[in-house]
Order: sequence, then C-alpha cells, then structure tokens
Amino acid sequence: VNNIKIAIMGFGNVGRSLAKLIAFKGEDIERKYNIKLNVVAIADSRGAVVREEGLTPYELLKLCELPRSYIFTYEPYGIPGAKVKEIYSRVAPDIHIEVTPSNYESGEPGLSNILYAINSGVNVVIANKAPLVLKYSHIMQYAKQRGIQIRFKATVMAGTPLIDLLKSLKGYNIEVIEGIINGTTNYILTEMHEDLIPYSDALKKAQALGIAEPNPDLDVKGWDAAAKLVIISNVINEPISLNDVERDDLSKLDLREVFKAIKENMLLKFIAKYDVKEKRALVKITKIPRDDILSNVKGTMNAVKIKTDINNIVLIGKGAGRMETAHALMDDILSIAEVISHGP
Amino acid sequence: VNNIKIAIMGFGNVGRSLAKLIAFKGEDIERKYNIKLNVVAIADSRGAVVREEGLTPYELLKLCELPRSYIFTYEPYGIPGAKVKEIYSRVAPDIHIEVTPSNYESGEPGLSNILYAINSGVNVVIANKAPLVLKYSHIMQYAKQRGIQIRFKATVMAGTPLIDLLKSLKGYNIEVIEGIINGTTNYILTEMHEDLIPYSDALKKAQALGIAEPNPDLDVKGWDAAAKLVIISNVINEPISLNDVERDDLSKLDLREVFKAIKENMLLKFIAKYDVKEKRALVKITKIPRDDILSNVKGTMNAVKIKTDINNIVLIGKGAGRMETAHALMDDILSIAEVISHGP
Repeated sequence: VNNIKIAIMGFGNVGRSLAKLIAFKGEDIERKYNIKLNVVAIADSRGAVVREEGLTPYELLKLCELPRSYIFTYEPYGIPGAKVKEIYSRVAPDIHIEVTPSNYESGEPGLSNILYAINSGVNVVIANKAPLVLKYSHIMQYAKQRGIQIRFKATVMAGTPLIDLLKSLKGYNIEVIEGIINGTTNYILTEMHEDLIPYSDALKKAQALGIAEPNPDLDVKGWDAAAKLVIISNVINEPISLNDVERDDLSKLDLREVFKAIKENMLLKFIAKYDVKEKRALVKITKIPRDDILSNVKGTMNAVKIKTDINNIVLIGKGAGRMETAHALMDDILSIAEVISHGP
Repeated sequence: VNNIKIAIMGFGNVGRSLAKLIAFKGEDIERKYNIKLNVVAIADSRGAVVREEGLTPYELLKLCELPRSYIFTYEPYGIPGAKVKEIYSRVAPDIHIEVTPSNYESGEPGLSNILYAINSGVNVVIANKAPLVLKYSHIMQYAKQRGIQIRFKATVMAGTPLIDLLKSLKGYNIEVIEGIINGTTNYILTEMHEDLIPYSDALKKAQALGIAEPNPDLDVKGWDAAAKLVIISNVINEPISLNDVERDDLSKLDLREVFKAIKENMLLKFIAKYDVKEKRALVKITKIPRDDILSNVKGTMNAVKIKTDINNIVLIGKGAGRMETAHALMDDILSIAEVISHGP
C-alpha cells in the first residue's frame, strides 16, 4: 500500500466534504487503487490541526462537526493561529489541497499557500479559482521548475470533468468554447422562464435553497463564469485575463425580456463564450432557439460545447455541489498519487 | 525538439488519415508541443515502407495515393512481404500504432503485432478494437511488466474522448453507462423515423453514403457496440466479455414498430447499456421518450450518459469518421510523447 500524505488548506463546505469523502470512501479507494490517503494537516482561517500519522476517519468526522474556524480547539492536535509555514515545519505532505475561498483582487490566502507548497516540493490540488485566474502561468512555470504536479479540475464544472476533457484534446485546434458554466444563474433564469417570476423573486428562491449566496454578485454579475473562462483559456494555451471578459449583469434582466423571448419561441440563457480565433470572451444574456441543446440544460446543470477544427463535443453535468466538488478533488488527488507511486 | 519515432501498422482509411494528419499538422504540433513526429515505418497486409530518418510530409502524402496493399512498391523504401518482426529489426520506433482491421474471432493480426511491440519495449496506440476486446487484461499486464504505455481512445466514439473521461473519474463509483455508441445504426434508425422508410431502404442509403459497410453485420447485429461496451467495462475495472452482451438485430426491425413508437410520442434507439451493479450488458432496440437527451442524438452522432454514485454526466459527439479517429490517435500519440520526453 502506498501512503499518501495530504494537507487540506481551507475547511469550509468543500474542505469538510473532502474530509468526509476520505473518511467514508478511504477504504474503498485503498482496495481499488492500493493507495491509502492520510490527512496529516487541516488548516482554516484561525489555526490548524496537525497529526503526522494521519487523522483517523472518526477524527475527520468529528472535525467536520466543529463550527467554522474552530478546528484549532481540537485536542490534542489543534494549533491556534498556525499557518502554512508552521504546518509545513511539522509535517511533509505529498499533496497540498487548496480549498480556501476565492478572492479575485489579491488571490489570497490561496496564492501564497500554493507558492509555499510548490517551494516546499509539495504537489498541489486546487479548488480555489482566484490564484489560477490571477497567476496561472506563474504558478505553472514555478511548478515545472520544481518538478511538481498541479491539478485543478474542481475549479470548473465541479464533478463534470471539463478540464480533463480539454487537456485530452491535444491534436485539435479548439476554436470556440461556449456554454452554461454557472449553476446559480442558470437556476435563476430557469425559474424566471418556468414560473414567470421576476429576477428578485427567483434570486430569493435560490438563496432559500442555498444555491445563491447572501451576496450573489460573484455569480449574477458574471465574475464566476468569467473566472472559469480565464482558467479554460489557460488550459488550452490561449490565455486571457479577467478584464478581457465582457460581462452582462443578470440582476438587471427585466422579466419582459423573458416574455419577449418566449413569444419568439426562444429562451434566455447566461452564456459564457470564448471565441479563440477572435480572442473574444464574454458572459452574456443570450437568446437561444428551443432546439439548441443548451435550452434543455435547466436548474443548476451546466453544459459546454467545444468546437474544434474537426468536430463538436458537448459535455453536460452538474456544475456545482459540495460532494461533486469533493469528488473532483479526489480525482486529482488519485491521479497525482498514481504518478507518485508508480510513475505514469 | 523531441523526436518521436512512429510505426503505423495498417494502412486503410484510418492509417492513411493519420499519415495525412501528421503530414499536414506536423509543423503545427512541433511548434505547440516541441515534439517532432517521425513516421519511420508503415505496414499493410502485403508489405511495408521503412525509412529510419522518418518519411517527409511529401512522401507520406504520396504513399496515401497508392492503392490498398501496394505500399511495398514505393521506391526506394518499400519492402515486399515485410511484417512486424522484419520492420522492428530495421527500426526502433518509440510508438507503435495499431490500425489493422478488427477480427473478433482471432484478434489477428492486431493481437500479435501489439504483443510483439510490447515485447520490443515499444509503446502502443490502438484503434483496432478486437485485440482489446479479446485480451484486454493480458495486454495491460504485459505492458505493465515491460513498463510500456498503452492508449486506445480511438476505439470508442473516435474523436469524442469518452475513454479519457472515464479514466478521469477515479473517485466515483460508476453505476450505469448507457448511450448510442454506433453511428451507422443510429443513422439508419434516424432515417427510418424521419423519412418513414423500411430498414432495407435506410441501409441502402447509409451504404451509398459510405456510412454502412457492404456487409453491415458488425454494426446492425450489435457486435460493434458490444465490443465497445467490453472495452468500456475494462476501463472502469468491471470487465465483461463479448458473449456477456445481449444483442438485438436491427435488420429485423419492422417499420411498424417505428410507427407504433411515434404514435406513443416515443422513438426507437439502438441503446448500448452496461449496468455495472447488476453486471448486465446489452445492445437493444429501446423505446425512449422524446424529452430524453438521447432522442435528440441524430444521424451518426453518438452520446453516452454516465451515472455515478454522486452525479450524472452526458458526453455527446461524433462517434466515427476517418479524420476524427486520426485525431484521437494523435491525442494518444502526443500524450505518450509528452510522458516519454518530460515525464508526466
């Protein structure tokens, strides 16, 4: 059995879902892949838990029951105020998992954490989009220098492996990538169309269900979809930056526009599109015909069409969710673990 | 620049499309990946061409103009009657491309070619399904022993990367895989529904367009889809064999069955399905509702739904075509070339 030591940086919804997934599926994975995942450290904004031999499934589940930012109180492994530097002075993980929140201005704390891990020779799996959106090529070049692997499939479409799919299309020239890559706004638009309710009511419904954040700006102003387009553009080696993306504001959408579209037998979708040839990226409220495959993508579902020089591919799946995101992280962890333990 | 030496075994439609692709896109790929692809040998049923320094783009294109099984006449590199053994005594390729035709009884000549390549320490890219269908675990174990890489994404859905997608879903338990994975029969069924013509007329149309073979049995009797299910089952580590797959015979479908389905607001599709939990695989004419995503998959398009323990993913794309298949081979070649030249 190959023991893989993991440090989880960030312990909100996604970090906790990953901890639960490891607690519940760890044995299954050990049987299937001969890889034992040992969580040797977990950090949140106010401290960390460090256990060199790896936390037991029971300990992981107990940590998930503590309130936000309180894991430092967990006896005897809690360390108040511990940050990445202190953690790495105590343990040497094989894989660093970055699941801190996205801050598109500074990229912090994710950016510094990731660079510290690379500098320490630790492979990195990322769900926090901001560091990649702001410093993709810097991170990748630094990792290459240090012989470190970086994976980040959880950043786009969560459990639906768009990033892997794009990486696998090596012999193609990708011309256009277009689709629905934000579940919250697609849910709001679906509600507006099906129940004929204004934006504000649809938003309230989404918030009540936990689909939209109390402050929904990152989603409804198109920042989240734009950030995903930036990551996609880097993956296909045609990088753009966040400010290159033209964005509509869904909160300004009048219900009458929905009525108008319905009358024309069309519907409105919040479409993210990167036209690689024209190097033009946008996140726009777009009128599409009912027989377009994207018109059937409802609620929090996501879908992406990839147009290459020789074919068209469509990938559809849920684009968000804690457990979906945790599974995407797990895919990346296992893919790195396989390389570490056997070679490719 | 990393020079990668390639041997192409089989020079029918797919082998020629790959040769053209390398001739036309080779420079582009060298610029993009720093990898130069040198075709050092090509073989067909009656001989081979061997050129240690690599065939030039012009030479590759000239070879594509020769009639089937006549490349041995190409001066000064043609060798009448040369088989894999003689070829490998003259050149040492990095990657062996197996694009001979599928023979589901013996697996030959593909199976022997592949084993010879592995034994010679050559990585292998496969488009010929038969050797994998008959001897998947033997091939993989032997390759593992020899430290050799095997790739075969072209065997299922051609240019649509289902195999890569399945491999990337490491943290999931896949429960059901279901879809349309044979383009020829989907074309015939689409014609029967849209033009209300009997099977025999739809088949003739497909044959006239080069979509169906003169002898269409492998497609219409479900063997091709069943073979793909066997490969899929091996990829997800839940292997079944060809005889485990229950098959319908599309040629027996009466047009009245199509009318009946239409009357019920349904339609008929030739659905391949592997229920992993129940370990039951089938290729069956299936009545599906019009709002099922598979009902909109028309003509030679393919689509697969993947149901896992935590989500559902749909992948849609063209499932056949010479250039699409050649691009899938190219993806596999580049993915091996990257590992050879840089490590993972």
